[in-house]
Amino acid sequence: MKVIDINSDMGEGFGRYTLGDDEALMQYISSANIACGFHAGDPRIMERVVAGAARRGIGIGAHVGFPDLVGFGRRNVDATPEEIRTDIIYQLGALDAFCRVCGTKLRHVKPHGALYLMAVNNAEVSTAIVEAVKAYDPNLTLVVLPHSETERIAREKGLPVALEIFGDRTYNSDGTLVSRRRPDAVIHDVDEVVRRVVRMVKEGKVRTIDGQDIDMTGDTVCVHSDTPGAVQLAKAIREGLEREGIEIRPMGH
Amino acid sequence: MKVIDINSDMGEGFGRYTLGDDEALMQYISSANIACGFHAGDPRIMERVVAGAARRGIGIGAHVGFPDLVGFGRRNVDATPEEIRTDIIYQLGALDAFCRVCGTKLRHVKPHGALYLMAVNNAEVSTAIVEAVKAYDPNLTLVVLPHSETERIAREKGLPVALEIFGDRTYNSDGTLVSRRRPDAVIHDVDEVVRRVVRMVKEGKVRTIDGQDIDMTGDTVCVHSDTPGAVQLAKAIREGLEREGIEIRPMGH
Amino acid sequence: MKVIDINSDMGEGFGRYTLGDDEALMQYISSANIACGFHAGDPRIMERVVAGAARRGIGIGAHVGFPDLVGFGRRNVDATPEEIRTDIIYQLGALDAFCRVCGTKLRHVKPHGALYLMAVNNAEVSTAIVEAVKAYDPNLTLVVLPHSETERIAREKGLPVALEIFGDRTYNSDGTLVSRRRPDAVIHDVDEVVRRVVRMVKEGKVRTIDGQDIDMTGDTVCVHSDTPGAVQLAKAIREGLEREGIEIRPMGH
Amino acid sequence: MKVIDINSDMGEGFGRYTLGDDEALMQYISSANIACGFHAGDPRIMERVVAGAARRGIGIGAHVGFPDLVGFGRRNVDATPEEIRTDIIYQLGALDAFCRVCGTKLRHVKPHGALYLMAVNNAEVSTAIVEAVKAYDPNLTLVVLPHSETERIAREKGLPVALEIFGDRTYNSDGTLVSRRRPDAVIHDVDEVVRRVVRMVKEGKVRTIDGQDIDMTGDTVCVHSDTPGAVQLAKAIREGLEREGIEIRPMGH
Repeated sequence: MKVIDINSDMGEGFGRYTLGDDEALMQYISSANIACGFHAGDPRIMERVVAGAARRGIGIGAHVGFPDLVGFGRRNVDATPEEIRTDIIYQLGALDAFCRVCGTKLRHVKPHGALYLMAVNNAEVSTAIVEAVKAYDPNLTLVVLPHSETERIAREKGLPVALEIFGDRTYNSDGTLVSRRRPDAVIHDVDEVVRRVVRMVKEGKVRTIDGQDIDMTGDTVCVHSDTPGAVQLAKAIREGLEREGIEIRPMGH
Repeated sequence: MKVIDINSDMGEGFGRYTLGDDEALMQYISSANIACGFHAGDPRIMERVVAGAARRGIGIGAHVGFPDLVGFGRRNVDATPEEIRTDIIYQLGALDAFCRVCGTKLRHVKPHGALYLMAVNNAEVSTAIVEAVKAYDPNLTLVVLPHSETERIAREKGLPVALEIFGDRTYNSDGTLVSRRRPDAVIHDVDEVVRRVVRMVKEGKVRTIDGQDIDMTGDTVCVHSDTPGAVQLAKAIREGLEREGIEIRPMGH
Repeated sequence: MKVIDINSDMGEGFGRYTLGDDEALMQYISSANIACGFHAGDPRIMERVVAGAARRGIGIGAHVGFPDLVGFGRRNVDATPEEIRTDIIYQLGALDAFCRVCGTKLRHVKPHGALYLMAVNNAEVSTAIVEAVKAYDPNLTLVVLPHSETERIAREKGLPVALEIFGDRTYNSDGTLVSRRRPDAVIHDVDEVVRRVVRMVKEGKVRTIDGQDIDMTGDTVCVHSDTPGAVQLAKAIREGLEREGIEIRPMGH
Repeated sequence: MKVIDINSDMGEGFGRYTLGDDEALMQYISSANIACGFHAGDPRIMERVVAGAARRGIGIGAHVGFPDLVGFGRRNVDATPEEIRTDIIYQLGALDAFCRVCGTKLRHVKPHGALYLMAVNNAEVSTAIVEAVKAYDPNLTLVVLPHSETERIAREKGLPVALEIFGDRTYNSDGTLVSRRRPDAVIHDVDEVVRRVVRMVKEGKVRTIDGQDIDMTGDTVCVHSDTPGAVQLAKAIREGLEREGIEIRPMGH
């Protein structure tokens, strides 16, 4: 029986600000990437989302990012490996504190935004990420883009990984994501997104932007939480996967 | 045999900024209150100080404060109990992460600046502090001012406490500290400070601002780290205590 | 002919976060209190709102607050008068820079949230506010609660003031606002709010929480921007005032 | 008669933190680049340094940087041109507010750290800087590295520039600075630094790292303020220049 995880970013508000509909999304996902106060999130939100995820049996992960609230962690910062490593350890501990208080466990880590994307082709950044996670807890699962430097280095160092696939993003023939600067980077048709996700899970294939079929298997599919229609998309993906008899289960089990 | 701990604030720099001479002070203290990034401190400094304290067998504590870097955590903020509780949990986890990575353990918690002082007479703030620490780890020792609401509530809820005494501060006859706004709040004469510390540890007495002797016993004596002469004062206090055959040992053992 | 200003808080988003519907509200108001980056707002939002207000002939004001983004400027901070004064000067200059770049002028200043409320009964805080504004530009109009220390001190020092009235808030018999902790602090019925605003402008009277009529005249009526129905309320107030032949005109002209 | 300006970074403390000895340095410099609260500086420090500089007849400039306090503005941030432009306008207004309050005038602008260095070879970043300054006040002088994109674009758009030279940094044969990653990037010998400065001012020549003489003239010489010996170096440079009969005068007059 095929198994997949559905992950989504959670807890991305800050103080008076809210972003995304965490409550609604949590009906459909199996893993939550929770912001840790650097690119978004604050201690109240973190506790509330951790508690909500724990109650629903959703896997809890730390969504670690650059300390850039005004840029929402989406701007590359040429931080040193030491800065990246220690910033991640700090955020892991902060989120884990709420897991502890809520009687649950931290399961996975996903780098956010610019940090995730910088790491894809950058061995130094990927190494800093992997070392931070491994030093904190070598049993945590790191969410990585398949074929990225992050995947390679995590495997090399023996850190568990979850390969991440994207139903609403187009792929280049080398398995990387098409840049968001291109108009065809994002697929907006819900049925098409569901079909692509189901195909990747069942057949391990995806059609690239150039019309080729390439191998693409994953452990977790990303559902963006802050786009209009996010809840509908998550619902459609979940139902599409269940219709095919695919089990949805948190990563890192 | 008499036993006392010497605690001092550590890791109060931020980014490019340094404050206090942590390296020198660590020769003389037995417990370090390490800033957690809210009123001071950053992940690099936190890791460095945790590692340095662990190497020297110094007890490691979280110095938790208000999120007010520009005010150095010294300004009262009328945060809600929920804000105080969750801000503390966040900071405990963040510092504990570096303990974990450095192979050591978090032992105590000391509220910083305005948070410490607000709690003295405020049951709501004290409760928020005690609940945060207890939820995170009920074996942590909370540093409290003797006779404060914080002491009362911590004892009521079964949280271990360390009573804190001050050699360089004058006392009112009810055991509270003389306000810093008064010119006689701080004792600058090193010998006098040492004598007062020794007397509190040996006899459990201190002479108040009004010339009375009151009971004042403590588990830990505070050495301020960011005043000129801090290192000399710490050295003098340590040597004064050792001369009297008093054992210096981290609190919370 | 009677004249009144309608003011509303604008530009209270931050980075990725939005708050309130500035575009819709600007159809109905005559003065905008624009956040300056301390409790909310960032340089992009500030420029956009200044440009939008200037285009519509809306009076531009600086909504100056405590440096407390996570608390949205709603928490009392016991900042010193010097901190309050210099924080306000900084914010005035920052917002004025966008007025200059957009070819328009700063007209008024309104303290935000906790700063506004702390000042009501606090001569020291009010003095710091008045001195900051006067030092920056003695022709700016300061929005004040009638009968507050802020009004008294601004008049004493010769700074122009605009008395602010609230249609959706209940009053005590001494002219102060009923505390938000009481359930009857806010009036939710739109027609009732409009009636109260019209009466204050036409008759200079308001019915207090105790059923008395007291004198209450104002130069500007506040429309809250971040509550549900804010746009409908602003529309109703504007139409109600216009129906009575009252002219709506920015304060400080 | 030859004329040169001596500029130095000022006001780089933050809250409880101090950095550099502004008071001592102000004896020897003629222009102060004052941090505006993004990479360093706070409203109290800004006011104090503006007042001190005005009192001494030192030219006042805005030292505008990335919003990265923990990184001291020294890390590249891939901010958009709109972010750079609006962040600079905000900072210009904030510092100018203190000039206004102190009865003096803003004269020049110097991008700080990573922003200065990114702009050297980047037309987009340089354009954002030039447009911000020009929109705010087209009479302000922009400090630029000779032969940089920043110089080219400022001249193209008609913004006054001050060419900046460095006595304690070595040059490549194309006139750019040798990267700080190389051990020979910085000259530590004070006499050598003074000789190089005097030669650039008198002869318009500097010896490169490769032993060639190239043309290098400047309007302002930079004295770093946060290195050990900064005050001695500033004193030596000033005295060396005065000994040669060179007039020291703020840029932008």
